[in-house]
Amino acid sequence: MPIQSAIPQPVTALVEAFSRLPGVGPKTASRLTYFLLRAPDDYSLGLADALARLKAHTRLCGTCFNITVDDPCPICSAGGRDATTIAVVEEPLDLMAIERTGIYRGHYHVLHGAISPVNGVGPDDLKIRELLLRVKAADAREVIIATNPGLEGDATAMYLQRELAGADVTVTRLARGLPTGGDLEYVDSVTLMRALEGRSDMV
Amino acid sequence: MPIQSAIPQPVTALVEAFSRLPGVGPKTASRLTYFLLRAPDDYSLGLADALARLKAHTRLCGTCFNITVDDPCPICSAGGRDATTIAVVEEPLDLMAIERTGIYRGHYHVLHGAISPVNGVGPDDLKIRELLLRVKAADAREVIIATNPGLEGDATAMYLQRELAGADVTVTRLARGLPTGGDLEYVDSVTLMRALEGRSDMV
Repeated sequence: MPIQSAIPQPVTALVEAFSRLPGVGPKTASRLTYFLLRAPDDYSLGLADALARLKAHTRLCGTCFNITVDDPCPICSAGGRDATTIAVVEEPLDLMAIERTGIYRGHYHVLHGAISPVNGVGPDDLKIRELLLRVKAADAREVIIATNPGLEGDATAMYLQRELAGADVTVTRLARGLPTGGDLEYVDSVTLMRALEGRSDMV
Repeated sequence: MPIQSAIPQPVTALVEAFSRLPGVGPKTASRLTYFLLRAPDDYSLGLADALARLKAHTRLCGTCFNITVDDPCPICSAGGRDATTIAVVEEPLDLMAIERTGIYRGHYHVLHGAISPVNGVGPDDLKIRELLLRVKAADAREVIIATNPGLEGDATAMYLQRELAGADVTVTRLARGLPTGGDLEYVDSVTLMRALEGRSDMV
């Protein structure tokens, strides 16, 4: 008898579904599945329900393209935020990271990716056209490009800078340099180079 | 506006549900959730369906207490396996590990845990009474105690050994020693002690 036949189909089905999640291998998927088999019924059913409701009850904000229940999203519809400053991020989780700092009071624009020729992602696959229209319509003063500090984020930033050159708007980018708590000895040379280039007067 | 309000409720609900899985922290839970938001609909719905079916379509085998669709399970009902040899394991995944070796042709008994006074798990919380009845009923020749090689597994093994002392059955335990591919230099002293105690003649 082959090994597989000893494992019930509902178990293998869930192991396979879990295995398709990022960072979850077959061993972790088994562990999660057998954990759920021992956990109370309402837990696995609650997880199933949360999964089913995830897509059914969320959509993209028509203005900033963040994930939201209501359109416009809470940030776009909030009073007291500066609609003329737009931070452009790759993903909703990047937006959350900026919100966690607690110091940003402007609006956002989620591109849903970065330009990546290797992966076949061009400007038309991202919410770039929507950003350009929005910058004009909102009479924006500043666009803060907050794409990731890597190859694809840099390519996207350069593309946006070029596209926004004609508009009457200040285009800025997040500072590059040493991460807080980092150690000069272990920092990579690109980061150190950027930190040197971006050095500022001590006040 | 607090940060939380920027995250839609269906998203936080799934993040929370994922966070309760073993080894999944809030960051991983967020990553999985936002991955699903970008993945095709049928994937998250498929995962939800697999979760819902997991408990509804599985049960414990009435003989060996492995997780199964049909009772008795494929192993207990298989022809050509030796029903008089019973390997006692803590969890269904332990059974799978033994099956993967491909050399075991006997039956199993899943205890669904190990004796652990610290966690309030006593013999009555495990399938021990069922094992004792089964050993008599099946006219078993050998019970192989295959609990985990740790404190709780050892306590369970000793308890089983004592309980089975009266029965006309050979009680054996999996060998303790050096793991294959291990390095003597890095092996812990308890393992090395067991390997010394269990040394065998070279043939």
